[in-house]
Amino acid sequence: MKTQAKLDIAHYSSEPEDLLAYGFDASGLSGAPVMVAWPENTDEVVKVLKYSDGNSIPVIPRGAGTGMTGGAVPETGAIVLSLERMNRILEIDEENLTALVEPGVINGRLQRELADMGLFYPPDPSSMEFCTLGGNVAENAGGPRALKYGVTRDYVLGLEAVLPSGKPINTGVQTRKGVVGYDLTRLLTGSEGTLAVITKIRLKILPQPEDVLTLLAVFPRQGGAERSGGAVSRIIASKIIPRTLEFMDRESIRAVEKFSPIGLPKEAGALLLIELDGHPAAIRAEAGKVIEICEMLGAEVSMAEDDDARDLLWKARRGISPALYQISEKKISEDIVVPRSRIPLMLAALEKLSEREKIKIASFGHAGDGNIHVNILPSEKRDLTPLLQELFETVLNLGGTISGEHGVGLTKRPFIGMEIKETELSLMRDIKKVFDPKGLLNPGKIFP
Amino acid sequence: MKTQAKLDIAHYSSEPEDLLAYGFDASGLSGAPVMVAWPENTDEVVKVLKYSDGNSIPVIPRGAGTGMTGGAVPETGAIVLSLERMNRILEIDEENLTALVEPGVINGRLQRELADMGLFYPPDPSSMEFCTLGGNVAENAGGPRALKYGVTRDYVLGLEAVLPSGKPINTGVQTRKGVVGYDLTRLLTGSEGTLAVITKIRLKILPQPEDVLTLLAVFPRQGGAERSGGAVSRIIASKIIPRTLEFMDRESIRAVEKFSPIGLPKEAGALLLIELDGHPAAIRAEAGKVIEICEMLGAEVSMAEDDDARDLLWKARRGISPALYQISEKKISEDIVVPRSRIPLMLAALEKLSEREKIKIASFGHAGDGNIHVNILPSEKRDLTPLLQELFETVLNLGGTISGEHGVGLTKRPFIGMEIKETELSLMRDIKKVFDPKGLLNPGKIFP
Repeated sequence: MKTQAKLDIAHYSSEPEDLLAYGFDASGLSGAPVMVAWPENTDEVVKVLKYSDGNSIPVIPRGAGTGMTGGAVPETGAIVLSLERMNRILEIDEENLTALVEPGVINGRLQRELADMGLFYPPDPSSMEFCTLGGNVAENAGGPRALKYGVTRDYVLGLEAVLPSGKPINTGVQTRKGVVGYDLTRLLTGSEGTLAVITKIRLKILPQPEDVLTLLAVFPRQGGAERSGGAVSRIIASKIIPRTLEFMDRESIRAVEKFSPIGLPKEAGALLLIELDGHPAAIRAEAGKVIEICEMLGAEVSMAEDDDARDLLWKARRGISPALYQISEKKISEDIVVPRSRIPLMLAALEKLSEREKIKIASFGHAGDGNIHVNILPSEKRDLTPLLQELFETVLNLGGTISGEHGVGLTKRPFIGMEIKETELSLMRDIKKVFDPKGLLNPGKIFP
Repeated sequence: MKTQAKLDIAHYSSEPEDLLAYGFDASGLSGAPVMVAWPENTDEVVKVLKYSDGNSIPVIPRGAGTGMTGGAVPETGAIVLSLERMNRILEIDEENLTALVEPGVINGRLQRELADMGLFYPPDPSSMEFCTLGGNVAENAGGPRALKYGVTRDYVLGLEAVLPSGKPINTGVQTRKGVVGYDLTRLLTGSEGTLAVITKIRLKILPQPEDVLTLLAVFPRQGGAERSGGAVSRIIASKIIPRTLEFMDRESIRAVEKFSPIGLPKEAGALLLIELDGHPAAIRAEAGKVIEICEMLGAEVSMAEDDDARDLLWKARRGISPALYQISEKKISEDIVVPRSRIPLMLAALEKLSEREKIKIASFGHAGDGNIHVNILPSEKRDLTPLLQELFETVLNLGGTISGEHGVGLTKRPFIGMEIKETELSLMRDIKKVFDPKGLLNPGKIFP
């Protein structure tokens, strides 16, 4: 391919302030890129990739940089390809319940535009007011509502993307079903920007559920974590699938109340934030059963009576992560998953680990699908690798996975071999070579 | 790898009657294998694949042979690897709502065992009493309930499989979420047995819906097809997602009534079979709206009052395909999909095609997700390639796909290039090489 001397697109920069701003992401890691490019359409993405390919310069695609594992962190000398100018909602098809969007659209913006039409896009990562749908697809993002509605992967019908060589491709279908050829759509979903740059996304959407009902269950200090874990299992075992079943441990509650108080009971052992949606009669009946289960396990349950009360509870839930940063700037946020029946075992193991290592650990997250955000809060600088290794071993022994939503990126790269064996890793590396033979697209991510 | 002189497993045969019985599938196509092997466990699958690899003999994995596109048809000289002896349900985990099964388990058997426990596995291909879950995964099978609940892909959490080299691999997770590495699970799902032999399947399961309500809407002869298509769009647009929304055109109704009559109105123009599930109050409210929409469009709507009445209607629906075989042994069954709002356009195009070509076409299927089984019923032997080509062109022009559930196999192989362009096909071929560098696993399928 002919080397392009100059990058022929409208918006790019090598100013130091841009290189600094686009050099890091929410993982706290950083690198030193040589250029930031803001293509405005697929043609310009093609130009950036041909330029990178022709000049052998690595390219790092970037949404809003809200990823927790360093997936958008550039290596030295790379071009950061920011998708933020490609932020149009191209189509909302009410009849066929699909939406076509550019990758830079903010998740929360699509949520609101759909809600105004009585429609619904379930995936709701905690960063939904900032994160982009392109990033959501690249990371296969989840969120509280994944329990009932699944993750981003379950909503991606088809993609337009550009290969590292600059060739555009189309994957998947516009329809609900399609089984022609290998599933490149789901292969790109969750590939952390290492296979192709996503330029258009066709999403499946749903009607808004008729009604929503939010419950807060406060478990006592004594055995609160175990009791709340037991409640999670019993709720599901009673054949109720709430749309969210969120857990906060004692540390998380105290952190929220310290830094952005909303009046949660500070002496509680654990909380569950439970949301049911559907037909009003159905969710009232389900709420009755949920309350019974939680009360039997010693919880006090209250119902958010209006939107304001519900928003307050969710503000608390979304405020945990920022509050924990206040406790420890060195916070490491993991997103392990275990089969939900083993959550009590996992929480007990975390308590032991915390005591033995004399390090604060705050846990919260999506208890309904066993996906717990384990936040390690060191009070001083220390090497946490052995602790993480032990944590992941426990998770894997319980039949879990080391990442439910954040991906591997840079931070989990040293540990991927604990979960994925060499034969499977080698298949993945060979797939990477099929898409990116020169290894220029988001190099160094995922694979050790 | 050392050549194995002899295949060291308990059950295999080269008897002519076995070679004949395993030489064809439901597509009607056939080939002449040299051996049929019935491994009983993963170790024996490994042995078959090492034997095939060592001796460069192609291997064709096979479930129950109910596939419609020839995916299980062996080429001359191949080994058929039948998974039918690997038919154990290994685990049903009520607490975590997962099931672990071997690939030879019949779909309907799992459905019934789960139903007895109040649990639910939604994918329900019409052949569910015969087809295997391994085949369902290999083809990414759908079924009527896909409208509300999605397809097989949406229920596969993880797989154990064996590569053509004989190396076993594990993909995915045991949990609801997991984003570590590329999504090999969905890459294998729908790969039509061309990448690896699936030996264990971990499925997500759901609680049984509380109640089900079945409606039959009979549309008048005049404009019946268009009216029913309109009803489909309006039902969804009114934010109701039935669990099934099945369509039968006039030809299909007449075929059923001729060969296995259940008392459907022979003079009807089209039928919709609509099933709602969920909380009793919710589905009664939805049924009211559905009836109103259908009646406004001139339909007569009745409700199946009990299980017997419901079973009779589904007997009719499942009986269409066999009945159409009685009309024409040369029946070609396609499974095109168009965005559901374009079903009326599609049906009108089919009517034109039928008249112009003087060939009977019967259409039925999953109108709710736009997936129509178009059955071409030639009265004499003739080359239907140009007709199929025109059909697929129409489908693709309407934003559809040439296969919603059946896959490509052999029968759609000549047409895949109409939908998947060369760049994407070439990626798929290279992925095939990553898994199967010698091209011994189900060769000749999918790719022209």
